[in-house]
Amino acid sequence: MNLPPALESLVEELAKLPSIGKKTAKRLAFHLVTEARARPGDLARALEVASVEIGQCETCGGLSQGPICNICADRSRQRNCILVVEDAKNVFTVESSGIYKGLYHVLGGAISPLRGLGPDGLRISQLERRVAEGEVQELILATNPTLEGEATAHYLMNLFSAQSLKISRIARGMPSGGDLEYADSNTLARAIEGRTNFT
Amino acid sequence: MNLPPALESLVEELAKLPSIGKKTAKRLAFHLVTEARARPGDLARALEVASVEIGQCETCGGLSQGPICNICADRSRQRNCILVVEDAKNVFTVESSGIYKGLYHVLGGAISPLRGLGPDGLRISQLERRVAEGEVQELILATNPTLEGEATAHYLMNLFSAQSLKISRIARGMPSGGDLEYADSNTLARAIEGRTNFT
Repeated sequence: MNLPPALESLVEELAKLPSIGKKTAKRLAFHLVTEARARPGDLARALEVASVEIGQCETCGGLSQGPICNICADRSRQRNCILVVEDAKNVFTVESSGIYKGLYHVLGGAISPLRGLGPDGLRISQLERRVAEGEVQELILATNPTLEGEATAHYLMNLFSAQSLKISRIARGMPSGGDLEYADSNTLARAIEGRTNFT
Repeated sequence: MNLPPALESLVEELAKLPSIGKKTAKRLAFHLVTEARARPGDLARALEVASVEIGQCETCGGLSQGPICNICADRSRQRNCILVVEDAKNVFTVESSGIYKGLYHVLGGAISPLRGLGPDGLRISQLERRVAEGEVQELILATNPTLEGEATAHYLMNLFSAQSLKISRIARGMPSGGDLEYADSNTLARAIEGRTNFT
């Protein structure tokens, strides 16, 4: 292809991003170096700053700029409830729903024997420590409704069952706006099992 | 959404890239700051280097690391033929076909009254200068087969017609692997007009 080496390196770095293939990477690289309105320096600086300043919140394990994240530091939030998620991204997804006002705990994955990831590989001891502090009264297990997520939820359920905690699992059922015709049987079974009184 | 500011800036910069929406930008940003194998610093450096070192070749106007691009500097290439393209990207597309061994000239666009781009906005005077040097014997007009590209090709044809140059236009017809059923009538008309003897 004979691209100038600096452009070739940029293409290679871009192509390492998820869902960015070689062709898209090439298009993005050309855009960045040829379009007057593209500001590659701005993107470079944003990358540098983010890679240096964004880390794990010491308390919840979520993404944070600084040692403690905004959510853990926010004294106006309900501090007796922890919603447990697999991934740091999930925190922002739940936040964007606006429905939850408590704290979070990010496990950093789910138990997966296939991928060799056991409970020790997750931030579970940190969760035990937070619960041991005594302020927490409810755990909402919001791991994904997958095999691994369910296994992890069950593991946590057993681990904390001896303590006087309210432990709940997020509901499974039909997604809003979904169509029965396209629901898989598992989802449908859960939706019928979990039916609520129609008032 | 409440993302940490450094992460929010990274999302915004990524979302400025073509075909990268806010949602993809968020996914890429999360990948860059959370995956251990992602190296945001490497991408940042590649961007810096490319933005500083990649510029326009002084001769052909193509992308170059250094004042003269590899193609213009390559004395083994046929120096009496210039293939004229609209965009710097096009050079690499033609190069990857491996069929052309001459030089290039990048116009930097095509004549487009709608977008207020006239011949003065293109690198046409530079092409005249190259032709005036006397070494060039053939111009291949490889602007796009669009309204603007055709207009530009006609403009260049008229401009250089007085000189003893061979001027050609790339062929239009059915693309290789194409299907007559899906060809538009314009393409079909050109393919029939431009038919060659079957030997």
